[in-house]
Amino acid sequence: MRVILAAGTTETALIDGISAAGAAPELMAQTPSADVEILEYGRPTVSPVTPVSPTGCPTPAAVTRAVRDVVDFDLTIVDAGLARPTGSPTVDLEVPAGTDVREPTAVADAAAIFERAREFGASLPDEALLLGETVPGGTTTALGVLTALGEPAGVSSSLPDNPLERKERVVETALEASNLEPGACGAEPLAAIRAVGDPVQPTIAGIAAGALESGTDVTLGGGTQMVAIAAVLRHAGVDEPLSLATTSFVADDPSADLEAACDRLDCELTVTDPGFDGREHVSMQRYCAGEAKEGVGMGGVLSLVPDGEMSAVRDRFEAVCARLGIDENGVDPESGSDAAGDGTDAAAGADGGP
Amino acid sequence: MRVILAAGTTETALIDGISAAGAAPELMAQTPSADVEILEYGRPTVSPVTPVSPTGCPTPAAVTRAVRDVVDFDLTIVDAGLARPTGSPTVDLEVPAGTDVREPTAVADAAAIFERAREFGASLPDEALLLGETVPGGTTTALGVLTALGEPAGVSSSLPDNPLERKERVVETALEASNLEPGACGAEPLAAIRAVGDPVQPTIAGIAAGALESGTDVTLGGGTQMVAIAAVLRHAGVDEPLSLATTSFVADDPSADLEAACDRLDCELTVTDPGFDGREHVSMQRYCAGEAKEGVGMGGVLSLVPDGEMSAVRDRFEAVCARLGIDENGVDPESGSDAAGDGTDAAAGADGGP
Repeated sequence: MRVILAAGTTETALIDGISAAGAAPELMAQTPSADVEILEYGRPTVSPVTPVSPTGCPTPAAVTRAVRDVVDFDLTIVDAGLARPTGSPTVDLEVPAGTDVREPTAVADAAAIFERAREFGASLPDEALLLGETVPGGTTTALGVLTALGEPAGVSSSLPDNPLERKERVVETALEASNLEPGACGAEPLAAIRAVGDPVQPTIAGIAAGALESGTDVTLGGGTQMVAIAAVLRHAGVDEPLSLATTSFVADDPSADLEAACDRLDCELTVTDPGFDGREHVSMQRYCAGEAKEGVGMGGVLSLVPDGEMSAVRDRFEAVCARLGIDENGVDPESGSDAAGDGTDAAAGADGGP
Repeated sequence: MRVILAAGTTETALIDGISAAGAAPELMAQTPSADVEILEYGRPTVSPVTPVSPTGCPTPAAVTRAVRDVVDFDLTIVDAGLARPTGSPTVDLEVPAGTDVREPTAVADAAAIFERAREFGASLPDEALLLGETVPGGTTTALGVLTALGEPAGVSSSLPDNPLERKERVVETALEASNLEPGACGAEPLAAIRAVGDPVQPTIAGIAAGALESGTDVTLGGGTQMVAIAAVLRHAGVDEPLSLATTSFVADDPSADLEAACDRLDCELTVTDPGFDGREHVSMQRYCAGEAKEGVGMGGVLSLVPDGEMSAVRDRFEAVCARLGIDENGVDPESGSDAAGDGTDAAAGADGGP
């Protein structure tokens, strides 16, 4: 099993109130670069920020890394529009960062990115791929694409209190700026991404399409952002079997309505509960309270954990948290977790960012 | 243990008779890009060539990949001047391909590359690093740097018949073009690389220097090219303990005289014999005949193989060879191993290229 993590950025995350990371633009831009360092090295290396919320909720990258310490899988990181340098190795598919969806064009070369990603996906010798993402603002661009495709559009959030109405207003403005009615792109999913999406979407959709056409099994690891990818693929005429693997935190979110979406898109749905409710650790409690929920492939890799090994994952998660400056009670002020001190939610790589 | 593989190119490999890959420049340029795909995916993916010599000797990347299938180590690939796209993820340290050493300047920004690599090396949380390389033409640039530093300079070759005199003439011309006498750069090792080296050298030397200063153990995995790196570090005043791990094929090469070089540079030497002489497979016989010998971290990762597991490595090596189109008797003409058909030695990522 190879996990492919597409990491990118969109200026959409900077819209006021859409992403808490927008309060500190540097965090929005840095989070994906830091996330992939956590996956590769276990903690940020050259990235100057540590994606931990003020309440002590770390980026889902910390969970994915914890799983990686327990389950043996190959990991390949793809640069899907990073805005800041990263110390992690990344596959270069020449994907630029995304523009604010309220501009007429959000991802100018969506079709070319899809094509390069498709070739990359088709080139891989693996029998099965699990695709994940980290892109702050990603649930807003997911809502945009689903709306442009004419799909019923519920999206989740990395915050307990989902600013869904605000996201809907942004999407409305974004479609107007692109001269599009809802549903106008039903037959042209890449046009939907070009107008109101983000660069991670054509990257993941392209890798999935290429892998499927070469006979590789594909699982989309994530929540409502991956629903948008599944919709793009189905609207593009891809009819191979598709699976979606997510966390219980997203599955339990009524605004996501994931089961109905997967039914509609003919996606097999796997939901995994990491059992965080059994521990006192503040980070696990924050996930149980609905913070972060998903992202950075978290739900996907949790589905790979064998029976009886989830306790080991929780142990490893505590160890990763300690490296990120979070002890059982919260963020350690003595630690290097400087991102937590400014009142912003740096864990914007979660299921879309709020 | 993290293995870091620096992959790059220098136009020096195109000099007539220096590298057999020069007979087909595309192979010289492509080999490192294909090598790192073999490490990451088990076979080339987007690279159009398969580095296998006409006699059926595959790139040492095939051995390193075989070890990876048996021994659990982290692998991070660094772009140290790749000239062609690769489907592998690479750390981007902004390292351009190297110029022909017979030009006045071979690596224009050697000092800046060293500094960026030093910061990267210092950022890594690992307790121990093993550094490897793939750069066609690399033993010639190693000879150049050793000569410019005033070190006794024996270098190995990926061919049984080492064109050492030809390399020495190239180095003589190269030093003249840079207005340098042998030994002129003894106090300025980065000036030696700038004048007559390749871009992989400041990358590996920088990573090693940064790692050592942050308390990480460093092993150089390779033959005479790694002797040149050790010399650069010692001439730069780095006095921490250093180890060099190589194959028995290089250690048995009298023109390398590795033991004396390691003594001189205060490097602990580890030599590992993969036991290829016990098998009939043509690829193992070619290594025993002195072809390829080392490269792509081969000797380094072989030193990580636990007692009793080398037979499993040989089994895995046969499986990797099969994927590269080599069966027990030689290159399968029906296979995709198209690089082997034109009479050139594509395995130039070996210990320096001939």
